[in-house]
Amino acid sequence: GRGSGSAGGRRGLAMAKSKFEYVRDFEADDTCLPDCWIVVRLDGRNFHRFSDQHEFKKPNDDRALQLMTKCAQTVMQELEDIAIAYGQSDEYSFVFKKKTRWFKRRASKFMTHVVSQFASSYVFYWKDYFKDQQLLYPPGFDGRIVLYPSNQNLKDYLSWRQADCHINNLYNTVFWMLVQRSGLTPVEAQDRLRGTLAGDKNEILFSEFNINYNNEPLMYRKGTVLIWQKVNEIITKKIKLPNEAEEKEVEVTRTKTKVVPLHCDIIGDQFWEEYPEILAEDS
Amino acid sequence: GRGSGSAGGRRGLAMAKSKFEYVRDFEADDTCLPDCWIVVRLDGRNFHRFSDQHEFKKPNDDRALQLMTKCAQTVMQELEDIAIAYGQSDEYSFVFKKKTRWFKRRASKFMTHVVSQFASSYVFYWKDYFKDQQLLYPPGFDGRIVLYPSNQNLKDYLSWRQADCHINNLYNTVFWMLVQRSGLTPVEAQDRLRGTLAGDKNEILFSEFNINYNNEPLMYRKGTVLIWQKVNEIITKKIKLPNEAEEKEVEVTRTKTKVVPLHCDIIGDQFWEEYPEILAEDS
Amino acid sequence: GRGSGSAGGRRGLAMAKSKFEYVRDFEADDTCLPDCWIVVRLDGRNFHRFSDQHEFKKPNDDRALQLMTKCAQTVMQELEDIAIAYGQSDEYSFVFKKKTRWFKRRASKFMTHVVSQFASSYVFYWKDYFKDQQLLYPPGFDGRIVLYPSNQNLKDYLSWRQADCHINNLYNTVFWMLVQRSGLTPVEAQDRLRGTLAGDKNEILFSEFNINYNNEPLMYRKGTVLIWQKVNEIITKKIKLPNEAEEKEVEVTRTKTKVVPLHCDIIGDQFWEEYPEILAEDS
Amino acid sequence: GRGSGSAGGRRGLAMAKSKFEYVRDFEADDTCLPDCWIVVRLDGRNFHRFSDQHEFKKPNDDRALQLMTKCAQTVMQELEDIAIAYGQSDEYSFVFKKKTRWFKRRASKFMTHVVSQFASSYVFYWKDYFKDQQLLYPPGFDGRIVLYPSNQNLKDYLSWRQADCHINNLYNTVFWMLVQRSGLTPVEAQDRLRGTLAGDKNEILFSEFNINYNNEPLMYRKGTVLIWQKVNEIITKKIKLPNEAEEKEVEVTRTKTKVVPLHCDIIGDQFWEEYPEILAEDS
Repeated sequence: GRGSGSAGGRRGLAMAKSKFEYVRDFEADDTCLPDCWIVVRLDGRNFHRFSDQHEFKKPNDDRALQLMTKCAQTVMQELEDIAIAYGQSDEYSFVFKKKTRWFKRRASKFMTHVVSQFASSYVFYWKDYFKDQQLLYPPGFDGRIVLYPSNQNLKDYLSWRQADCHINNLYNTVFWMLVQRSGLTPVEAQDRLRGTLAGDKNEILFSEFNINYNNEPLMYRKGTVLIWQKVNEIITKKIKLPNEAEEKEVEVTRTKTKVVPLHCDIIGDQFWEEYPEILAEDS
Repeated sequence: GRGSGSAGGRRGLAMAKSKFEYVRDFEADDTCLPDCWIVVRLDGRNFHRFSDQHEFKKPNDDRALQLMTKCAQTVMQELEDIAIAYGQSDEYSFVFKKKTRWFKRRASKFMTHVVSQFASSYVFYWKDYFKDQQLLYPPGFDGRIVLYPSNQNLKDYLSWRQADCHINNLYNTVFWMLVQRSGLTPVEAQDRLRGTLAGDKNEILFSEFNINYNNEPLMYRKGTVLIWQKVNEIITKKIKLPNEAEEKEVEVTRTKTKVVPLHCDIIGDQFWEEYPEILAEDS
Repeated sequence: GRGSGSAGGRRGLAMAKSKFEYVRDFEADDTCLPDCWIVVRLDGRNFHRFSDQHEFKKPNDDRALQLMTKCAQTVMQELEDIAIAYGQSDEYSFVFKKKTRWFKRRASKFMTHVVSQFASSYVFYWKDYFKDQQLLYPPGFDGRIVLYPSNQNLKDYLSWRQADCHINNLYNTVFWMLVQRSGLTPVEAQDRLRGTLAGDKNEILFSEFNINYNNEPLMYRKGTVLIWQKVNEIITKKIKLPNEAEEKEVEVTRTKTKVVPLHCDIIGDQFWEEYPEILAEDS
Repeated sequence: GRGSGSAGGRRGLAMAKSKFEYVRDFEADDTCLPDCWIVVRLDGRNFHRFSDQHEFKKPNDDRALQLMTKCAQTVMQELEDIAIAYGQSDEYSFVFKKKTRWFKRRASKFMTHVVSQFASSYVFYWKDYFKDQQLLYPPGFDGRIVLYPSNQNLKDYLSWRQADCHINNLYNTVFWMLVQRSGLTPVEAQDRLRGTLAGDKNEILFSEFNINYNNEPLMYRKGTVLIWQKVNEIITKKIKLPNEAEEKEVEVTRTKTKVVPLHCDIIGDQFWEEYPEILAEDS
């Protein structure tokens, strides 16, 4: 016999396969409810350890934050129907349009495409941000999916993440000042901050370190919002005009839609009034 | 005011956040049914285009197959409770143990950890396999999760994937012979193969290209099975014996559990009889 | 031993039970997404046969329609948080409030309480409507649950059911006229109506049977809407006034909330403008 | 116009309906995982109150238990593919066959058909068991669905329910003896039994009331198991033999499959060995 195959010889191949194909019916339908906003949020896996091993600057490492945002931009460009994204620390949330029909709205597709594209981008673009700091091992990310029926729900979700950013960043800013400048051990710094309110932390920063928290960079305090914006690009084109012998360089303005990072408040109404298209019914 | 914050001043921060926290209740419980095998399968996204742009050898590119397997090994080592994995072409299936309690058996955790670890590993290990062939962009992967109640269901699932490997590889082997050696166009090769059975394809390979399909590499014909195996490692240790002045080198045998690739048939009973621990109740 | 029990003697009873209790973890969480309208629709099982065997008048049997409505009223009174219900033929839809927390919004609870209460009421109240017509066997009902994120979705759902009522009732009215008055067989009547539009059917009714469809009873054409309404009840109470020897009868007006049936259009805006409390946020 | 209809006139009817039909897509797929046992368990709603109002004998009312079993038999006969049922107190569990394809294995269908058929039967057959005791209002039932992947899981589920029956019935038997015979108040009886083990309860029954618990009726101690059994029925038929003038009565034995109640132990192996067909693969 020439290649008659272990799976059952001449005509057995396709038959053998068809015998097993019943296993496809075990896959459950995970279609998302229509007319809801679909949010996929990812988090770095064990990023506490990861940031130590890669010597992230504390409390905020610009390289790490900008790499996260680069990956999120890649996700928005490569996938379809993402209306807005919001990131802080080692997490990013992606909001798919209410009416998206991408992959028939199957939850597993949204989740796995987001996290895999993000993870491969993280390694791919690492050297652009971390230069000589070698990436020691491939990082993992964990993702989840949540549906929001109304615009108010969605805005409240994003506000929740930004309030979380705010609280964590204020805490971390004071904590690391106490450790790095005042020489407290982490445990001592933690004890010092136990039970303090936002005002207390602002006061410590101001009186002990002469830092006005409100002057800290917006990216740290507000996180990063990614939205689609029309931008005008001026490009130089060589064209040959009909009644001239030579090609000539001319400047042409092209309108492109790009993913743009913002570091602004999204808890109040102003942002949503400025960019009404994000929540627009046909978005 | 010193940093009184846009989210509401002194005591408003935590309160503002708590007002939004109701959005957490919108996350659905996606716990997998207990006592079922949990399979996560991933596929390369648009890998037809990806393989063209990165000049994969057709019908099989050893570098690409070995990179896939390296990534799958990384997934098995980094994640918990994966009993066996099976890969072919641009897909890999990971089987979590029936009784795993990892992440409380939440489906989204299984899916996103598998695909993100796989995707980051793919970029991280690319250069080890593709050398001078530059990676042009970060690839995406799509994942899904399926539950199988019985051992027979699971074996049938894996058999289904291996039968698929078999059918596709036989087809691709003949197809690319007709294109590469006989100079047919892809459309002509496709026409030539339309309606042929396995036996016909074997015959074409033998009579026209003097190829016995059964002598083709097992990795192409069977795909790759990854299992855990105890291996003995002999390591050299320097030890100082009590009644000797100098340290002395001695050889020590250590038993480790490693992920081992096999290229064998998993449709028949022999494999399962040889490795009964894979399906063992307490596995 | 005196009653030492087969489940394992003196102390074994509770232990035996606890050994089995792991099976509780197999129950899946079926919580409905918050902030969505929850609709449970039920249909009579095999009601074509049931209506024949119980000699329902065709095309509409007042006794059957009124019994359905009585059962639906019972469901609204016995269960919690039903804002509106709509019924026609052998089906009824119940709409639970967007914000209901009844039974933690578990889908199975909504479905099974609705259909079981409806089914037991159907038998319980049968004789009040069908008098001498004996109920031959206990009928079954089938139920389903659907979530609607927006008010518009919900209104469109109810419009869909009322449009269905309209189409079916117009068809059935002509069909049974052709059978009962013109002596056509069911197959002949069906053939006659194949391909006819609404206008054609109206024309047949008018020209052949002198029936203006718009004068047919609203309950047949529009179905039945059940809503909660405040009604004033005047009751007679015996009270003893302080400076009088005898008890005295006085009339007291009490406001009660009752389930009220309407037979009106719910497709247009008028109904929703007249009863804005049905869709009110805090409803 | 003659019946031009509010839904949009002559040709608008079907069009109006089709505009709303998108709402059908909001119904989620609730197909049960294949190759799992499907259990639907129902409980009486507020049956504590119900049993008081209908003067159920305590701790066990034969009429109530037998009516429950009659309803469960009706469910098994009217629905498809129920392999076994188990009931105690005001609950009943129905086990659908592993391989059932009834209603495409949709969870909502299983649940709603079971509880609605049970509820209507409860009212329908009430008078056969409760005679002069009038049914005061239509009772409700609550249902849930659970999947079990293996035979062991299913046996453990049924054992769990029977152990529950055992524990509750022993408790209730002593409790009501203390109340009815010793004149304790319910609170006193409860206090007396707090912390007692099975053996203590047996001892109280024996020493104070001369009751050997093991002699209590099996139906109370074990609950009721419903299975399908082949039974031979002898019926009398009138047949006309070819060479005889007159019709003649003859006795004919017919094999029928009936739902049969048992009151036996199902925790041990004996029951499953005696009725292997219940768990048989093709069942």
